[in-house]
Amino acid sequence: MTPSPEARALHERIVVVDALQASDWNRERLEELRRGGVAAVHVTVAFWENARDALGGIARWQGLLRRHGDLVRPGRTGEDILAAKAEGRTAVIFGFQNTSPFEDDLGLVEVFHALGVRVAQLTYNNQNLVGSGCYEAEDGGLTRFGREVVREMNRLGMVIDASHTGDRTTLDAIEASTRPIAITHANPLWFAGVVRNKSDTVLKALAESGGMLGFSAYPLHIGGSDVGLDAFCAMVARTAEAMGAERIGLGTDLCLGWPDSYLAWMRYGRWSPEEGRARDVRWPAYPAWLRSPADLPNLTAGLLARGFSTDEVAGIMGGNWLRFFEAGFRPGGAA
Amino acid sequence: MTPSPEARALHERIVVVDALQASDWNRERLEELRRGGVAAVHVTVAFWENARDALGGIARWQGLLRRHGDLVRPGRTGEDILAAKAEGRTAVIFGFQNTSPFEDDLGLVEVFHALGVRVAQLTYNNQNLVGSGCYEAEDGGLTRFGREVVREMNRLGMVIDASHTGDRTTLDAIEASTRPIAITHANPLWFAGVVRNKSDTVLKALAESGGMLGFSAYPLHIGGSDVGLDAFCAMVARTAEAMGAERIGLGTDLCLGWPDSYLAWMRYGRWSPEEGRARDVRWPAYPAWLRSPADLPNLTAGLLARGFSTDEVAGIMGGNWLRFFEAGFRPGGAA
Repeated sequence: MTPSPEARALHERIVVVDALQASDWNRERLEELRRGGVAAVHVTVAFWENARDALGGIARWQGLLRRHGDLVRPGRTGEDILAAKAEGRTAVIFGFQNTSPFEDDLGLVEVFHALGVRVAQLTYNNQNLVGSGCYEAEDGGLTRFGREVVREMNRLGMVIDASHTGDRTTLDAIEASTRPIAITHANPLWFAGVVRNKSDTVLKALAESGGMLGFSAYPLHIGGSDVGLDAFCAMVARTAEAMGAERIGLGTDLCLGWPDSYLAWMRYGRWSPEEGRARDVRWPAYPAWLRSPADLPNLTAGLLARGFSTDEVAGIMGGNWLRFFEAGFRPGGAA
Repeated sequence: MTPSPEARALHERIVVVDALQASDWNRERLEELRRGGVAAVHVTVAFWENARDALGGIARWQGLLRRHGDLVRPGRTGEDILAAKAEGRTAVIFGFQNTSPFEDDLGLVEVFHALGVRVAQLTYNNQNLVGSGCYEAEDGGLTRFGREVVREMNRLGMVIDASHTGDRTTLDAIEASTRPIAITHANPLWFAGVVRNKSDTVLKALAESGGMLGFSAYPLHIGGSDVGLDAFCAMVARTAEAMGAERIGLGTDLCLGWPDSYLAWMRYGRWSPEEGRARDVRWPAYPAWLRSPADLPNLTAGLLARGFSTDEVAGIMGGNWLRFFEAGFRPGGAA
């Protein structure tokens, strides 16, 4: 797959933002971000970790940022994303896919905000202290503590993510939050009928409240590794009609470099029996048109080929996330 | 005790810095800082806490800073101290009296630095992973991990404190550190012969390496609650002759508002038997001339009365710490 010179020129000009990658980072992988022209990437620092273990994830990223400062820089504000674009670096936005690092301590939201965390997913698949995950049979909605966490995240300027969150908890969060929320990495349910994708009801409420959806390229979420770029871009087009082209972006969910055992950790954490954790899980292959962030120019080309205007492509490839994060990372004033 | 108008005018002009207070903070106590004209105070966020528990201490201080922003502001740089002086607020410098929050994880030094911790005492009374405390029978000096922690603190700009540290570990740290270290709250051993005070050998090495001593007003360190301001200022004068008037300052060790049970925590932590922890310990009374930070003008008056020049008084009351912290909080470059 080779993008046309026009598509490549456009890709180099625009601010590309990927609202979710969860790879095992090293220099080679950071260089792929640069080859893909990524101005900002939201990375996962914790899945099931408690406060202490999340500090280890922060510490590892501080080391990466120090050792590879020629490639990456901290991403804590919209200005950081624009600065990264100007510098030819990638702004790294720290995020949690779970509120588990906050434990039961509301004060830890501000502690992790001070450490640079700018996005937190309310729940990761399961029920937690804040709400229900998308794989639970029952969704009891946002909990008492959950309402406090939403308020505190609103106050600080930490974006609420609901990608792995149950529908009722998601709708509760949209209503409780004074600021728009995000689904950083999921697709519409009609495109691939899996628990992780989102119903029209959720996507409608998300769009109407000024929220954002990031499209995932994880094989499970698109119907398999063989799904073509055309089909993916057709999904983007139909979703743009439903939600508005300014409410959508990318959240590729690229998880590269991990052994299969880490996939078992992501799925089963510490909460399921050892046998469950050791289950025979295998990383799927990403589609041929997005094997790494270096392939992102293919998406710019695909969206252009689908008939989006250059402004729409610029928005979907990153401009929409840039505006959303610019506003969303700003402190929100009194709680 | 009422300071003369001259002493009071001088006190209002100078930058007053107290290099150690460990009170149970609330608004009333912060107002005492303001009444005492304190431009910066180094406060204790952890004694025996591990990483997780230290986060709780940080979270409590973030709340205090937010709720009482008219009185206090974060103190992370020398500029913060000067800004606090100009604003009529007190800069609060976060510190640990132990390296226990770093656990055995070198990466946590940078994590806590990012949370604003600018001073860490290598050891608190006991042996830890970094070195020996002053109450241990044997002092094995700086450990392997301790040398790494010193290097990392040097790199980040986190001041090394040795107030409760054993002599050999202290001398090792002075030698291993590429930057001067501090004894924020202790007195010369000749003034009060207790384990916590410091030998001439240590004070000489400290002064020759550009380090700082902060004088304590804790009754144990001065010979009791009845010791007079004259005797205290005579101690300051003799120490100034030995170390140089620019190598000394205040570290009052005011610990106000705690119940006796908290004194038991400070002394016995979790490491001694329950009976030990419940031992009948009682807070001593501070001397009449320093019942709270609001009494600090008495010290300015006492030092003037002792014959120090106004420049020397300005240095001892805070100017010396200001210069030391200005340099010490600056990042140190490559490790």
